[in-house]
Amino acid sequence: MIILGIDPGLKHLGWGVIEAQTPQRMRHIAHGVITTDAAFSMPERLFSIYQDLVKLFDKYTPEALANEALIFSKNVSSALPVAHVRGVILLLAIQQNVSIKSFAPNTIKQAVTGNGMAKKGEVQQMVKLLLKLEEIPKPDHAADALAIAISYAYGVPAVSDRLT
Amino acid sequence: MIILGIDPGLKHLGWGVIEAQTPQRMRHIAHGVITTDAAFSMPERLFSIYQDLVKLFDKYTPEALANEALIFSKNVSSALPVAHVRGVILLLAIQQNVSIKSFAPNTIKQAVTGNGMAKKGEVQQMVKLLLKLEEIPKPDHAADALAIAISYAYGVPAVSDRLT
Repeated sequence: MIILGIDPGLKHLGWGVIEAQTPQRMRHIAHGVITTDAAFSMPERLFSIYQDLVKLFDKYTPEALANEALIFSKNVSSALPVAHVRGVILLLAIQQNVSIKSFAPNTIKQAVTGNGMAKKGEVQQMVKLLLKLEEIPKPDHAADALAIAISYAYGVPAVSDRLT
Repeated sequence: MIILGIDPGLKHLGWGVIEAQTPQRMRHIAHGVITTDAAFSMPERLFSIYQDLVKLFDKYTPEALANEALIFSKNVSSALPVAHVRGVILLLAIQQNVSIKSFAPNTIKQAVTGNGMAKKGEVQQMVKLLLKLEEIPKPDHAADALAIAISYAYGVPAVSDRLT
């Protein structure tokens, strides 16, 4: 199964593609980041992200989309743009007819490192180990997206799709 | 110019279509509400809204989309679903190549009634008068959407599309 992991964001959206036969047999395929410029309008940026994601679907033909849940946020002004982006991601996933799961940040850390409170560097180190990469994937958003894809492969509990 | 006004929401999305030759010459075309059921997943509900909006674009061929801005929110848990829906709305507006403007709630009240602090009933009464309707449009979300479309026709200040 090919899994596309997404760390949603308006300015930087991290993505990572892995193939997982079993949780023990995972293979890194690709990763990267979609960046949009704040000089453009929100609708233009959302459309740009949508178009870039369509290209990823065409290129890697994922059967599953894993993304980070937006459960709550102390900082509303930063959460609202991310929620707009997530709306576009979830719409596209349905249009592409793929399985969709969203994971809480702590669940992702727990899945990848065994510790729900792990630091960013520990998560990145484990992503490198689990996917047998020579270096930590860059940038951070792409490493996070791979961690999210790994969480899907591991079958850890997802947030209810009624809620997010 | 045909204007589609939208009051965004996941459970109830109000919409209203008007034709405006000049701010003094407005004509009501249609209004209604798109409802999605909480028994379905968020991605399914977003897709359902997207499909219903596409039908509205096909039927009424609006040249402009006016919607309510999400500037801030005291209640994050209710703002996040609306932000997901707005992401889908803004994406569709770009795909349909229409002009997009978002208005702050107080600006909409000010435009329609002359008072930024007007109550819901006063706004609805003015929508009825301005569009020469026999009754107040129902449900409330549809009346709000018509008020948003009227705000577009009046050319009142929109929220920067960089921000929302």
